[in-house]
Amino acid sequence: MIRVVQQSLLGSILSNMLLVLGCAFFGGGLVIMKREQVFNKAAAGVNSGLLLMAVMGLLFPAVLHATNTELHFGKSELALSRFSSCIMLLAYGAYLYFQLKSQKTLYDMGEDDNERNSDDDDEAPEMSMWEAIIWLSILTIWIAVLSEYLVEAIEGASKALKLPMAFISVILLPIVGNAAEHASAIMFAMKDKLDISLGVAIGSSTQIAMFGIPFCVVIAWIMGRPMDLNFQLFETATLFITVLVVAFMLQEGTSNYFKGLMLVLCYLIVSASFFVHVDPTDIEQNIHHEPGH
Amino acid sequence: MIRVVQQSLLGSILSNMLLVLGCAFFGGGLVIMKREQVFNKAAAGVNSGLLLMAVMGLLFPAVLHATNTELHFGKSELALSRFSSCIMLLAYGAYLYFQLKSQKTLYDMGEDDNERNSDDDDEAPEMSMWEAIIWLSILTIWIAVLSEYLVEAIEGASKALKLPMAFISVILLPIVGNAAEHASAIMFAMKDKLDISLGVAIGSSTQIAMFGIPFCVVIAWIMGRPMDLNFQLFETATLFITVLVVAFMLQEGTSNYFKGLMLVLCYLIVSASFFVHVDPTDIEQNIHHEPGH
Amino acid sequence: MIRVVQQSLLGSILSNMLLVLGCAFFGGGLVIMKREQVFNKAAAGVNSGLLLMAVMGLLFPAVLHATNTELHFGKSELALSRFSSCIMLLAYGAYLYFQLKSQKTLYDMGEDDNERNSDDDDEAPEMSMWEAIIWLSILTIWIAVLSEYLVEAIEGASKALKLPMAFISVILLPIVGNAAEHASAIMFAMKDKLDISLGVAIGSSTQIAMFGIPFCVVIAWIMGRPMDLNFQLFETATLFITVLVVAFMLQEGTSNYFKGLMLVLCYLIVSASFFVHVDPTDIEQNIHHEPGH
Repeated sequence: MIRVVQQSLLGSILSNMLLVLGCAFFGGGLVIMKREQVFNKAAAGVNSGLLLMAVMGLLFPAVLHATNTELHFGKSELALSRFSSCIMLLAYGAYLYFQLKSQKTLYDMGEDDNERNSDDDDEAPEMSMWEAIIWLSILTIWIAVLSEYLVEAIEGASKALKLPMAFISVILLPIVGNAAEHASAIMFAMKDKLDISLGVAIGSSTQIAMFGIPFCVVIAWIMGRPMDLNFQLFETATLFITVLVVAFMLQEGTSNYFKGLMLVLCYLIVSASFFVHVDPTDIEQNIHHEPGH
Repeated sequence: MIRVVQQSLLGSILSNMLLVLGCAFFGGGLVIMKREQVFNKAAAGVNSGLLLMAVMGLLFPAVLHATNTELHFGKSELALSRFSSCIMLLAYGAYLYFQLKSQKTLYDMGEDDNERNSDDDDEAPEMSMWEAIIWLSILTIWIAVLSEYLVEAIEGASKALKLPMAFISVILLPIVGNAAEHASAIMFAMKDKLDISLGVAIGSSTQIAMFGIPFCVVIAWIMGRPMDLNFQLFETATLFITVLVVAFMLQEGTSNYFKGLMLVLCYLIVSASFFVHVDPTDIEQNIHHEPGH
Repeated sequence: MIRVVQQSLLGSILSNMLLVLGCAFFGGGLVIMKREQVFNKAAAGVNSGLLLMAVMGLLFPAVLHATNTELHFGKSELALSRFSSCIMLLAYGAYLYFQLKSQKTLYDMGEDDNERNSDDDDEAPEMSMWEAIIWLSILTIWIAVLSEYLVEAIEGASKALKLPMAFISVILLPIVGNAAEHASAIMFAMKDKLDISLGVAIGSSTQIAMFGIPFCVVIAWIMGRPMDLNFQLFETATLFITVLVVAFMLQEGTSNYFKGLMLVLCYLIVSASFFVHVDPTDIEQNIHHEPGH
């Protein structure tokens, strides 16, 4: 069950960063072809920085595990994951505080336009920190409740459609789950309100990476379950290169349809990779059961 | 034979990105020492983005293979490589369309200077998309025809000079092969036409990474040969860090002799690494022939 | 002994880049909250580029070793490390020349403020290249002399405090050793002289990465000891992601307290990782002693 939660959280980050953002850039670029669209570079930069920090948090347990250099096999990466999760939650809390209270001036330019649309948009900066936390807590508990049913449903679908479980959890599930966000991000991009699109696409990714994932680890800790931040090497490498590509695309503060197309094509390559990827945990368990290992 | 094609394509990318670009920056910086030279940041950014996408395409088969998490050992990475190659060709086609038709305004600044030099420069934007594709197809078929002779020549040279085959394919061959591009890139940089130098150096790298390599995979597919995008971990890591270094150097849109020197020194480190590197395919084959593996 | 030198050099880079810089950004950001602090983007960019080059120098021996694709096991990576070290020293020498002689104009803006503070600050650009080299040579020899005592002290502390040796060498030792730099970096940041803070924090990191480490390798070479640039995969991955995060944070040329807090939190995650990390050399030696391996 833990593995499915991990994979669907990862898939949600990947789909938001590549597919949703790519479609928003592509759609917006097709509507406004005469010039490049601009967005708030500073806000995008802060989000990219948080995503890089999340990559750091996921990288260490995976590399420790892969290089077999942990102090206590298995236990160490769990302890590290729980510590890192608390740090990541702290960083996300500080980000919300930074964004909402003290640096309002930085985001004022975008907010003037946003105010009228605030009721359409869950990610608008008008939402208070506590509202956001409560809303996300409910969401996370909801996911926790649903996921037991989900595992069965995914296993059934995996057998019926003859697709690897990793592909269903990482690719298909998030596409369905993010449909609403997806639609609103494209709509706002086509209306040249790219900052809202970015808030939906990159804001959601940051939220899941720096709040959703560590929150699940902490909840699992409270429930006594061994969920950690070790997403395995392949998944971590995928997230790493994806964050690099997206951070690179966002650094100039402009977008056009070609950037959008590139992000969507990158998502196709990522999807294809998960299509031929078997979850390594099964293989590992087999290896550990072998005698003399 | 496939391995030699892979390695000389990789070597050509590395030598264009580090050696040719480094020499152009260094030569240009020595001639014009009073100020930093500037180039078209947007065009360089698009090329860096395409190179990052190529790294993504090469990374997944290599990581899948290295972590042993493919669905069907061997077959899966071939299928993934063929799919990714088609996506990469699509992205490169879209890039040519984007560059030539719709975004002409973006490149106008550079083109005014280029028009007089168009006959000197194969990479000039005046070449049409179809001309480029036909020219590259001929080149690729030419490489395919020559490579059988090449393998024998390299094997002979490897024994005569007592150098590893990887070093000859990745380092020596591309230096000889890129001599003309190399000379023209430095010449244009010294005339303060850095955009043409960049077109030659980074443009060629992008062309090989996003057209040459996937085109070879597709041609091999048609001919029924199992060429894939798995360049092995060491080669992929080299390309990854090289693209990061070059993307970082290009992001500011300025150059000076020190940046050029750094790129050339990076190329020396890369060359030395390939000098002590044995092609892992030989080792792997030995391992696979061992009983019980 | 070599391993402790490697680890304390690495730890010094990590602590300067994340902890010292983070505290400087955080402290400076708290004092000057109304606006973002600015610093010399070009100087920071050159330093980031040198750090990326250092990552390249450390990455190749580690990847060659990890993928088992060296020409001569053990010997090749030593030869490569010695060659790369000479290249890195050359690059650092060129950097000093570039910074001090020819490009003075680039740094003039910062120097006007610095001149009065030059006696407080070891990293000020007024120090000549030869002074710097002599000063660093003395420091390095001093480290070499002390390190034999150090190893015993660390082993004693490791047993007494029940902490892994890697944690003491990489985290605790550099925090104590960098205390003076740390204090001065924060002080200058609070006085809104962020360029001096950066010179201390990032300048020191660059100095250790591009001068300290390769100089130790060359000294060890002269003394006939096998010190190489292979810092093992986990350490190299840590340095890689840290340099990426810091290069990303510096690219805009502005800082605020949130950026500082993020860097400090990243340092906490890095520290926690080394807390549960066992030095792989011990494990490896055991593996190599096993029969049939």
